Amino acid sequence: MNITHPKIEKYLMGLSTEDDRHILEMERIAKANDFPIVDRLVGRLLFVLTKLRSPNLIVELGSGFGYSAYWFSKALERGKVVLTEYDKENLDYAKRTFRESGLIRKAEFRVGNAIEMARGYRNIDILFIDIDKHQYLEAVKTLLPHLSRNALVIADNTLWYGRVAGRKKDRDTMGIKSFNDFMFASEDFFTTIVPLRDGVLVAYKVS
Amino acid sequence: MNITHPKIEKYLMGLSTEDDRHILEMERIAKANDFPIVDRLVGRLLFVLTKLRSPNLIVELGSGFGYSAYWFSKALERGKVVLTEYDKENLDYAKRTFRESGLIRKAEFRVGNAIEMARGYRNIDILFIDIDKHQYLEAVKTLLPHLSRNALVIADNTLWYGRVAGRKKDRDTMGIKSFNDFMFASEDFFTTIVPLRDGVLVAYKVS
Repeated sequence: MNITHPKIEKYLMGLSTEDDRHILEMERIAKANDFPIVDRLVGRLLFVLTKLRSPNLIVELGSGFGYSAYWFSKALERGKVVLTEYDKENLDYAKRTFRESGLIRKAEFRVGNAIEMARGYRNIDILFIDIDKHQYLEAVKTLLPHLSRNALVIADNTLWYGRVAGRKKDRDTMGIKSFNDFMFASEDFFTTIVPLRDGVLVAYKVS
Repeated sequence: MNITHPKIEKYLMGLSTEDDRHILEMERIAKANDFPIVDRLVGRLLFVLTKLRSPNLIVELGSGFGYSAYWFSKALERGKVVLTEYDKENLDYAKRTFRESGLIRKAEFRVGNAIEMARGYRNIDILFIDIDKHQYLEAVKTLLPHLSRNALVIADNTLWYGRVAGRKKDRDTMGIKSFNDFMFASEDFFTTIVPLRDGVLVAYKVS
């Protein structure tokens, strides 16, 4: 299922020109290796949201090789982004990119279980979730006490190739659906999903 | 052209339950009269953006009967939203809704030419554009000096039924395309388009 019409996606990509060679290189590597990244349109949305929230602390659950964290860190005026990832090689790649681009002073790199490591932080202003899809609900429930006032929770793949609107009952689809249900029903959050690429949930903590 | 897959739109609407009777009533009136409003999903996005920007002054160009302004004012913690509209009857309806809901102290109602009236304001934190489509570019160029630091420009219908990705060269399509081109190329803004309903341009003023 095409969540957004391919012609619209093409039009938006045409508008979103880029000259940051690190972004271009990460996009090239992702394409060549079929490695999932949030893509440039989502990256730009993350940039705008970060500018608006002006966070001191961003914690990413599931950073891959650092593409989304790169957009976050570009938008940061102070503070830092914590990258968490179980695959050390991915994170080593991210570290190189951040070092070469001069953004490394805004970043912290942690290898291991994302949720466990995130529990070590307090006053998270932006929590970005991109781990295994059946873990989303556990992640937000566990980390709720670790969020700052008016925090943003941003989660990728919340339309899950459109499967959320279908009848499949596999673990990942059900995981995403129960996460979305929880976020929209929660009195702690005001939640919306932006249908860019695979669906980006953006929830504003009202407390 | 379906900008977003209808099943996805239906799924998102199902998540976005609403119990504010004024919102429900405006949605009912819009549907019954085929009156264009930004719709609930866009309304919720406006709410989140307003919470994040925490504005003192929102100016709307083209308020219709007040649906988008209602979402803005619900999110306002201080400050006001200025509704501008050439049709006095629409604005009278908006005024009644705002009075009944208790939001009227956050709103100002102006009948006449939207761009002309907006020029009377300084330090606009959020400029919302929803007038005739060939006037978008003129609107943002005219009002640029009236925007505050790190203002948001939000514009509706920037995918114009998908026509921006086609070959039509009518005045409105060309108007939207030149506006989008200008916003994405401008050094004053970092711009993104959210493909909700008819496309919502969100631009962060970087200066």
